[in-house]
Amino acid sequence: MSDQLSADHRAELLKVRNFTCKSETEADAAWPRRVVTGLQPTGELHLGNYFGALRRCVQLQEQGEDVMVFIADLHSFTGRQEAGERQSRTLQAAAAVLAAGLQPERAVLFVQSAVARHAELCWLLACLATHARLAHLPQYKEKAATMKEVPVGLLLYPVLQAADILVYRGTHVPVGADQAQHLQVAAQLVRTFHHRYGRAFPTPRALLPDDGSDRIRSLRDPSKKMSKSDPDPKSRILLTDSDDVIRLKIRKAVTDCNPQVTFDPEGRAGVSNLVRLHCLARGLVPEEALCEAEGLTSAQYKEVVARALCECVAPVRARLCELAARPRLLHEVLRHGAARARRRADEVYERVAELTGLPPRLAPHLAPHLHARLSRT
Amino acid sequence: MSDQLSADHRAELLKVRNFTCKSETEADAAWPRRVVTGLQPTGELHLGNYFGALRRCVQLQEQGEDVMVFIADLHSFTGRQEAGERQSRTLQAAAAVLAAGLQPERAVLFVQSAVARHAELCWLLACLATHARLAHLPQYKEKAATMKEVPVGLLLYPVLQAADILVYRGTHVPVGADQAQHLQVAAQLVRTFHHRYGRAFPTPRALLPDDGSDRIRSLRDPSKKMSKSDPDPKSRILLTDSDDVIRLKIRKAVTDCNPQVTFDPEGRAGVSNLVRLHCLARGLVPEEALCEAEGLTSAQYKEVVARALCECVAPVRARLCELAARPRLLHEVLRHGAARARRRADEVYERVAELTGLPPRLAPHLAPHLHARLSRT
Repeated sequence: MSDQLSADHRAELLKVRNFTCKSETEADAAWPRRVVTGLQPTGELHLGNYFGALRRCVQLQEQGEDVMVFIADLHSFTGRQEAGERQSRTLQAAAAVLAAGLQPERAVLFVQSAVARHAELCWLLACLATHARLAHLPQYKEKAATMKEVPVGLLLYPVLQAADILVYRGTHVPVGADQAQHLQVAAQLVRTFHHRYGRAFPTPRALLPDDGSDRIRSLRDPSKKMSKSDPDPKSRILLTDSDDVIRLKIRKAVTDCNPQVTFDPEGRAGVSNLVRLHCLARGLVPEEALCEAEGLTSAQYKEVVARALCECVAPVRARLCELAARPRLLHEVLRHGAARARRRADEVYERVAELTGLPPRLAPHLAPHLHARLSRT
Repeated sequence: MSDQLSADHRAELLKVRNFTCKSETEADAAWPRRVVTGLQPTGELHLGNYFGALRRCVQLQEQGEDVMVFIADLHSFTGRQEAGERQSRTLQAAAAVLAAGLQPERAVLFVQSAVARHAELCWLLACLATHARLAHLPQYKEKAATMKEVPVGLLLYPVLQAADILVYRGTHVPVGADQAQHLQVAAQLVRTFHHRYGRAFPTPRALLPDDGSDRIRSLRDPSKKMSKSDPDPKSRILLTDSDDVIRLKIRKAVTDCNPQVTFDPEGRAGVSNLVRLHCLARGLVPEEALCEAEGLTSAQYKEVVARALCECVAPVRARLCELAARPRLLHEVLRHGAARARRRADEVYERVAELTGLPPRLAPHLAPHLHARLSRT
């Protein structure tokens, strides 16, 4: 894992782990398990997203977890995006989650902005988060350093992320190792809220994958993560790529001059990334993949990996195409999910309101004859 | 006015004025006039609040303006407040607005947290506001300097204030001169939103009072504003103070050693403050007040001022007492107001959603047989 994490990231990660261990001994076991995760509607979805997020949610659903997946359209405002693109990417992300196998009657799938409680809780938490803490997060510092004008939304990003989880009393969050520090902000906010107002939330814990699905590298520069924002489209395989394109991109994947196939993510990031993709596509561990690679040069092995990926991606791609052509059905799925999510968020927010002294949210109600009744006092 | 403003404040104020003049020539005349203002539920309400905010809103209502007044409970989270205190202060603030004469069927009176759109728009605007701009606002710098741990909510304060106004397309905001810089943030956000997504909001303009009601000074130290947070309770007259207490506080009001009564806010802040209170209580201009003071020493004049204040405050205090004893009626008034405010906010937010590519907010809706319908595709 050290190949992809900066020293800052690693230090943060250690803190999260230490905290998680400590909190485990607390009363957190009393809260029912609930997995909450979000997916940004920015850029085309690629294999990193598929293995690391979409398929993971489906696996958790299959394991009987209570899974909530939201399309994080509010988060997308921290970057620039045209309205039309935001809209189409939101629908496409929902279609991809469904194509990966999420069932909207077992899990809850919805758009973040459809549940106002995210933004409402974000404000309350922003009043508990210290400016200094947020400004020193490595991800903030890295992003802010590249911008001329830093929107304050970027500073608030981890606070909204905390709200996203806490508003459903999420207990577990499937993340990659590089996002674990944001959970540390959430854990800190849970403690501060508890200390100031009383207990309202469990401390959310990171669910780190053990299959390496959070460590898929760029095909063009294996020192970097596979990313939507990489300017080179050959660096990633999209969920919508045809078999031919997948084969081509794997063929052009950067490896080193050693033709042997080995698994050594730190020393040989390029070829190890191919082994990783092979494993994820076929459900293998690296030793099994290396058995299949025996006697093959890395060039020959690429054909094996490409075939495995095509077989894995083809049905998802087909389903994604079908669903993308049915926006009305997608909207209905999302409305259904939003109705369920709102009910859950309302329940949690009611407790927050009670603890903080906000008036209970009553149904809108026009009262008749107020004037007369007021003058009568 | 220079007696109460720092150089920073004055510079900011100039910017607002210049901006307001420029915007006047724009298309802003097309938006219907709407006055929006908030009242923090912190501390006991005093004469500064009464003359500067409560009575001003009522005067605007009487002038036929479309007035919206909200109790800013979300803003109160940037400071520390017990839940019980927040709750009781919120009701008391609502009672005070009504006691001052606001009519909940002509104007709209509600609690900020009852309308989720404030927080939702705040997030979107936070993604347009630059960190540097907010961190350099004089009010932020002054407050942050006194705190060990600065909550990021304090940085966001003017962004939520902008959302409070823009979410109703407020065109005019009754403020004191010292708050005008926050309106400048709102004006900037209107421009940025317009530039990036399209026109959704008018540029809100400051309504500065011409009766000096935003310039009421502390009775103990006339170099400072009359304030809820002053540690000396004798520095302010509360709306709930009895006639005896009012007389006592005015008698103890700090003036200078010159026994003459003159009106010179810069040179003689103490006695001028008494003249100001006299004017506000009786609806006089300073020249008229000075006529009444002719031949009186400042000690004798204090009795005149105290009498005028008692006459002015007594009916409001009585009404406030009556209303405070009827929390259920107050809740009903606030629910009524929230229902009306939500309708207006929804209309504006719908346009914002359309321009930014957020999915339209549809009513919650559980769709039947989704699983079967999804598998049929």
